[in-house]
Parts: sequence; structure tokens; C-alpha cells
Amino acid sequence: MIVIGELINTSREGLEEAVKNRDVEFIQNLAKKQEEAGVDYIDVNCGTLFKEEVEAMKWLVNIVQEVVDVPLCIDSPNLKALKGGLEVHKGKALVNSISAEKKRFKETLKIIKEYDARVIALTMDDEGMPKSAEDRIRVGKKLIEDLTAAEIAEDDIFIDPIINPIGTDQQVGQYILHAIEELSREYQDIHITGGLSNISHGLPQRHLLNRTFLILAMSKGLDSAIIDPLDPKIMALLTAANTLLGNDQYCTDYIQASKSGNLDI
Amino acid sequence: MIVIGELINTSREGLEEAVKNRDVEFIQNLAKKQEEAGVDYIDVNCGTLFKEEVEAMKWLVNIVQEVVDVPLCIDSPNLKALKGGLEVHKGKALVNSISAEKKRFKETLKIIKEYDARVIALTMDDEGMPKSAEDRIRVGKKLIEDLTAAEIAEDDIFIDPIINPIGTDQQVGQYILHAIEELSREYQDIHITGGLSNISHGLPQRHLLNRTFLILAMSKGLDSAIIDPLDPKIMALLTAANTLLGNDQYCTDYIQASKSGNLDI
Repeated sequence: MIVIGELINTSREGLEEAVKNRDVEFIQNLAKKQEEAGVDYIDVNCGTLFKEEVEAMKWLVNIVQEVVDVPLCIDSPNLKALKGGLEVHKGKALVNSISAEKKRFKETLKIIKEYDARVIALTMDDEGMPKSAEDRIRVGKKLIEDLTAAEIAEDDIFIDPIINPIGTDQQVGQYILHAIEELSREYQDIHITGGLSNISHGLPQRHLLNRTFLILAMSKGLDSAIIDPLDPKIMALLTAANTLLGNDQYCTDYIQASKSGNLDI
Repeated sequence: MIVIGELINTSREGLEEAVKNRDVEFIQNLAKKQEEAGVDYIDVNCGTLFKEEVEAMKWLVNIVQEVVDVPLCIDSPNLKALKGGLEVHKGKALVNSISAEKKRFKETLKIIKEYDARVIALTMDDEGMPKSAEDRIRVGKKLIEDLTAAEIAEDDIFIDPIINPIGTDQQVGQYILHAIEELSREYQDIHITGGLSNISHGLPQRHLLNRTFLILAMSKGLDSAIIDPLDPKIMALLTAANTLLGNDQYCTDYIQASKSGNLDI
């Protein structure tokens, strides 16, 4: 699993204030904790700051990379903020995100190629958000074909099938799971990721739904997720699922996690 | 999900003594609790009693059916015990289990037909336990073909793909998941079940592995499980997975379970 830590995001409580006040210690601490929890990428998103976003993004990338070795996931729908973050990022970053909307695709692709970044690709196009499994598969395939045609390696593409709330459409879980299954079967080297928490929007006990959906999706081929790596329950489930899916020779990681107390949930 | 409650089994602590002492109150209480937890079947197994098994099975079926309305799963490799249990059982029972071993298949089939029971079919034959996904698929298909040829309805067949410990073969999880996927895709009306706890044999934090494997398997088509229905964590996960898999219109069951406090895990 490629884990993307989601905690440095100004839409989360207390974060906007911390970024506005340039609270280096607070942000660096959150970055270090996520690295210690074993993430592969640390997401940085300051989209709520609007006009100040570009400067804030540069600052975030700089101060986070001062204290962690893992690369960052530069997260913004704003091309200038993406470009600003990538300019100062050291190493190969992940960009969150491109989509199949024509203008956004063209402009974001240019930046990805310029900075040799990996990319999260949302299965939406100029017709809007995907409604069915077929929408997600069709747009996902188009993104993969167009990105690889532009010489982006499959291994650098992370498809995000767009997770909508189960509360508003009871079939959406099946749609997403079916799309994950089809895309991961057809393209061996791509990755599939997503922010899972939207599935539970509007329902009680959201963490239970989020965690359960993560495991259901892993069974179908999801091999990356944008999550809170400081949630011990989700990390224990990830470890168990990884072992059960055959990715843990001699169950070494599982036994080590158990010895470290990381499975005592 | 078709939930089979596993608690009345003389291999579990305190149960052999309770059955030997004909402790009606203890057994009936365990049966009632499982029914209240929402099981579809209550498994009864007194296999550790050997020569006394047939009489004990009849006693168990009688006293359990005195206090619950759900049917029972008559669980024994001993044909006489199966027959004894079915003789006294009221309604349509589930038999645990038949296999593709020639002699056992022939003799158990006769009993199933005589008592019009549903049946759990283990994917093992005279060559022994399945080693690969292919073994499970091949033997599973043979069982389904042979049972339906004998006029057992697909809806009365529960395939058990035989769950071996992940600790002794790190690929076994994938083998089982692949077999579940293939069999559930090819035969729309059969059910797939299993006792999940064997997956974690020999490893720490067994409940975590068992629960995680249940969700992984549900994603592939497992629609029944032999579990402890008094474990609130496993029941909450089942409820969440059922909702996420599109089997819960308007999320009614999920919201009801939440209101009842059944998701506070």
C-alpha cells in the first residue's frame, strides 16, 4: 500500500490558522508524526487560503521537507499553487490532481512533465462527475491512455475513482468497487487511490464505514489511500489486509507491528 | 449475509461440560442470545463427544428448537449424528458438511435429500485438502454440478472454500479470495460461507485478521459466514459492509443499528 498522509490540509481544524501564522513547529510536528507512522507521501493542501495559496504552498513544501525524507503530495486544483509547490519540492513529487476535463488535463500535464511528477487522476471530465461504474471506467481508461501517450509511466499514475456518499446513492459503493476491479485488472502497473472519508458523508459512525470501505476496496485492487495515518485502527486494518492479500512474506510486517503494539486496537 | 452462529460447539471452552451435564439453561441461553444478535442459523456441534455424539446431537436440537425460531445448522462429519439431528429437527435445516470425497458425498447426499436440507459443501476431495485457488475452484464446481444434478437447488448449496492459516502459506488468502470470486461469478444462486478464524491460526491479534479477512472475502462474493454473533466488532463490520455493498436501501439497517448502539465499537 502507498499511504498518503492527509493531515496537513487547511480545511482541517486548526490548520488554516497554523499556516496563516506560519507556525513552523506545529506543521513540522504533524509532518514528522506522519512519517513515523509509515506514510509514503505527505499531502500538503492550503486551498482554503485562496489568494495566499501559492506563497503558503511554497512555505509548506519548504518547511515540511526540512524535517522529513518522504516526498510530498502537492494538492491543489489551482495550477499556480501546484507549480509553486513543485518549484521548491526536492525529489519526485506526487501531484493531486489532474482530471479528464480538457483544459485542466492539458495544463496540468504540462506541469507534471516539466517537474517529472507522479499524478493522481480523477475520473471526471467535461461532462461532470461520474455517476456509474461505467463512467469511472471509461474516464479512467481515457486518462490512462492519454497520460501514457504523453509518456507518463503507468507506475506514475494514480487513478482516483471519485468516492461519493453511500447515503445519497446506495449503489455507489458497488460502482466504485467495480471500477477499481476493472481498471486494476486491465492496467497492471497503475495505482488506484482515493480519499475514503467521503463515502460516509451524512451518516453516523463515519470511521466504521470509512475503514470497512478501505478493506472492501483493497480486495478489488486499491493499492493506495489518502488517510489519517495517526488513526491506529485504520493502520492496524491496513497491516492485516496487506498480510492477508499476500504482500507480507512470512507475515514479518504483521508480527513486527504486533510486537510494536501497533495492532492493539 | 447469512450468518451462522458458531457458539454451540463442544470444542469451545465450557461447552463439552454443559452438554455432558445436559445443562438445558446454559445451552438455551446461548441459543437465545445468538438469535437476538440476528443470526440466520445456529450451528450445533458436539463432535468431541464421540460415542455419545448421536444422543447429544438429538438433545441439542430438541432443546435449542424449544427456545428459538431460527433453523439449525447440524454440524458433524459423523453421518449418524447428522441423521440423528435431522430426524428431530423441525423445518429446513442446514447440514455442515458434505465434501467431494466419493463415499462421503454419496452417503451425505442421501441424508440431505431424505430430510430436504440445505448443505455446506467443503472444497476437498479424495486427493485431500485444496492447495491452490484452482483446486478450490475445480472441486467447488464439481460439487455444484453433482449436487444440482441430484436436484439440490443452487440456493441450497453453501460452498466452503476451506480456509487455511495465512501463517503457513502467505498466498492462501489470495487463493481463497480468487476462488470465491470465480465461483460466485459463475453460479449466481449459490452461497459461499466459511469459518474464518482458521486464517489467523498461529498469529497474534487473531480477531483483527479474522475480521479483516471477512471484509476482504465479502468484497469478492462471500455471502455467509460462520462467526461469533456476540462479538460486537464483527457484527458492526458486517452491518457496514452490507451497506457499502449496496444491500441496504436508504441505509436503513445501518442507521437502525447505529440508533440501537450496535455500531459503538
